[in-house]
Amino acid sequence: MKCTIITVGDEILIGQIVDTNSAWMAVELNKLGVDVIEILSISDNGDAIKEALERAFSQAELILMTGGLGPTKDDITKKSIAEYFGESMSFHEDTHRRLEAIFAKFNRTLAPAHLEQCNMPNNAVILTNDMGTAPGMLFTKEGSILVSMPGVPHEMKYIFTKHIAHLIFEKTKDSHTIFHKTIMTFGQGETFLADMINEVTEELPEGVSIAYLPSLGFVRVRVTGKGDVSVIKRVSFVAEQIAEKISQYVYGYDDEKPEECVKRLFTDRGFTLATAESCTGGLLGHRITSVPGSSYYYSGGVVSYSNDMKMKVLGVRAETLQQFGAVSNETVKEMAEGVLKLNNADVGISISGIAGPDGGTPEKPVGTIWFGLAKKDEETQTFKISATKNRLKNIEYATNIALGRLIKLLK
Amino acid sequence: MKCTIITVGDEILIGQIVDTNSAWMAVELNKLGVDVIEILSISDNGDAIKEALERAFSQAELILMTGGLGPTKDDITKKSIAEYFGESMSFHEDTHRRLEAIFAKFNRTLAPAHLEQCNMPNNAVILTNDMGTAPGMLFTKEGSILVSMPGVPHEMKYIFTKHIAHLIFEKTKDSHTIFHKTIMTFGQGETFLADMINEVTEELPEGVSIAYLPSLGFVRVRVTGKGDVSVIKRVSFVAEQIAEKISQYVYGYDDEKPEECVKRLFTDRGFTLATAESCTGGLLGHRITSVPGSSYYYSGGVVSYSNDMKMKVLGVRAETLQQFGAVSNETVKEMAEGVLKLNNADVGISISGIAGPDGGTPEKPVGTIWFGLAKKDEETQTFKISATKNRLKNIEYATNIALGRLIKLLK
Repeated sequence: MKCTIITVGDEILIGQIVDTNSAWMAVELNKLGVDVIEILSISDNGDAIKEALERAFSQAELILMTGGLGPTKDDITKKSIAEYFGESMSFHEDTHRRLEAIFAKFNRTLAPAHLEQCNMPNNAVILTNDMGTAPGMLFTKEGSILVSMPGVPHEMKYIFTKHIAHLIFEKTKDSHTIFHKTIMTFGQGETFLADMINEVTEELPEGVSIAYLPSLGFVRVRVTGKGDVSVIKRVSFVAEQIAEKISQYVYGYDDEKPEECVKRLFTDRGFTLATAESCTGGLLGHRITSVPGSSYYYSGGVVSYSNDMKMKVLGVRAETLQQFGAVSNETVKEMAEGVLKLNNADVGISISGIAGPDGGTPEKPVGTIWFGLAKKDEETQTFKISATKNRLKNIEYATNIALGRLIKLLK
Repeated sequence: MKCTIITVGDEILIGQIVDTNSAWMAVELNKLGVDVIEILSISDNGDAIKEALERAFSQAELILMTGGLGPTKDDITKKSIAEYFGESMSFHEDTHRRLEAIFAKFNRTLAPAHLEQCNMPNNAVILTNDMGTAPGMLFTKEGSILVSMPGVPHEMKYIFTKHIAHLIFEKTKDSHTIFHKTIMTFGQGETFLADMINEVTEELPEGVSIAYLPSLGFVRVRVTGKGDVSVIKRVSFVAEQIAEKISQYVYGYDDEKPEECVKRLFTDRGFTLATAESCTGGLLGHRITSVPGSSYYYSGGVVSYSNDMKMKVLGVRAETLQQFGAVSNETVKEMAEGVLKLNNADVGISISGIAGPDGGTPEKPVGTIWFGLAKKDEETQTFKISATKNRLKNIEYATNIALGRLIKLLK
């Protein structure tokens, strides 16, 4: 089954928001064996919507459309779909009752714009939306399906999960398979990984392909199989061969995030972790605590942005800061050891650097970032990287490097 | 000038990465007066690439294409473009020299895959890339321009900024204008904002339109004008009228982020800020420190994930934790006051909640999040929200609420 995703909204075309809905839907569709052949973002414009529908119906059996169903004047998806099908609209009593009930809970009455949300094209199957005011709609045309959903991510996810996923499952369960196995690596670039596994990738079995997805500090190596169900075995075999050849860089599989790997390694060993962040400002703590259950191993951290806090809370010595500066081998060593002691943790990690865009000197240019890694009863390790001039990139890169080093330490 | 953006890569169609390049390019193109009419994501497939080019040349004068220029086997954009134009390839000596120089710096030699990156279609203008190995390429066809760039964000941004932006500027400077003014609001939903400004939006002047962009805790109200240069005045007039009607919810303009507003308000008043985070795990600190210059007002924070840390570093009393629990009015009060005192700051903010997916009780279900707001010489405020069952959404929502409250406090 082929699918086209269409997202409607000027906010995407002028770059005011990043479209995360499409990636979410693509992952779910892939699990269901659906091939997303195109993602199309278009304007809140009747002609653009109708032209996109025409194109999508010509090439896909499933069309998922998000956006433009809100109560305000710029939302014209529903009207445009009705025009595309040449259908008129009727007032949908059920939707009206649902809206009244939602608003009654908050002691509010419906605005006129909400009443307009109750008008529905006559050929639409209404998909109830318990997360918001705009229902989804399902249309069929010559065996193909069009689903229109709100653009608000949790509303779209609700409607997809509740109303659409099982429909697709019923249609695709007997047809061909798409299977991915992704090998997650750290500490080495894609070209060199590619060279190391060249022997395997030179002669891939039928239906199997390879892709490399680099990000700051990490590369995902994805093995994909398309075909009948036997392709799963061939993908697994290739993935095993690859993982063996680059084993020192592999930390996990199938989109395991570095922070998930860190949690797995720490909880497996019963170790606890504490963080002392300066230039990353809390991002390391956030990445760690974004994983459910992180409280079992993560004691907490200090965002010691000021020197005062480095001294008062972490016990960094005034002489160290004065002699070597906040961004130095000596300071990150004392920060890591200080936060380890403060939390009585097994591992303490520290980061201090010049994130930029300003604050660099000839000796310590913007992008100079020091790391300290203290482990109970072992000598503290320190190291330095030279990153870029871009603040947000440096913050993210430093956080990734820290996660990679925690993995290396426990692997 | 109309533009189509094409992103090439199976990783987007299977949802393995979110396409952030398009939003970045769209913002830059908008500034240059270019109308992005479509963003199209397609597969690493020769036919799909050629078909997309055909379609894009039929509707746009500018085509920006990213992705598929890497050194590995799945990268086929260059080859497909050459086929589309019916051109052969030649070895590009300049590119080869650049690559050798890059690798020499790291004492490495070129892999065979890198040599392949030096082959270029004969009709391509080569756009040097100082951020990576794959150069960009520029092609012209009947007055339209096609630019192919790597998909790695900072490489794409480098090539766009260095080679493309001024070209576009020369072409568009005398033509029509696109002008946006965005009003940033917090603490009220889009429908009610729409109702409050209905009088203004009922009769908009020529060429002016309105859109609402809600996110967790915030709504952006965007006023857009298209036409000759006189539309700027009409957009500004409408935006002023709107801002006046909803002034109590307005915190800034033109995509000022809440954290940028917080920085502005704190530095204007010469106040300092300290944070004590539990369930948000450092995201508040990260958002605050993502803004350059935040060190002028932000002393730092404590990610007091464990009760031990709440007591030892923030001075929360054991009895408070025992009697009321970590997620309570009393605890967030002591956390906020504790972090204020620890940093001798003017304002201290604290967050403690049950982010989920587990850990809820009937009295304190998942999504219960308490906030404390301590200000020097004033009584500490506390309040609670009931969020969702989704961990990441709760963490982001709580962080946004905290930023909104800091804005409200100082506004």
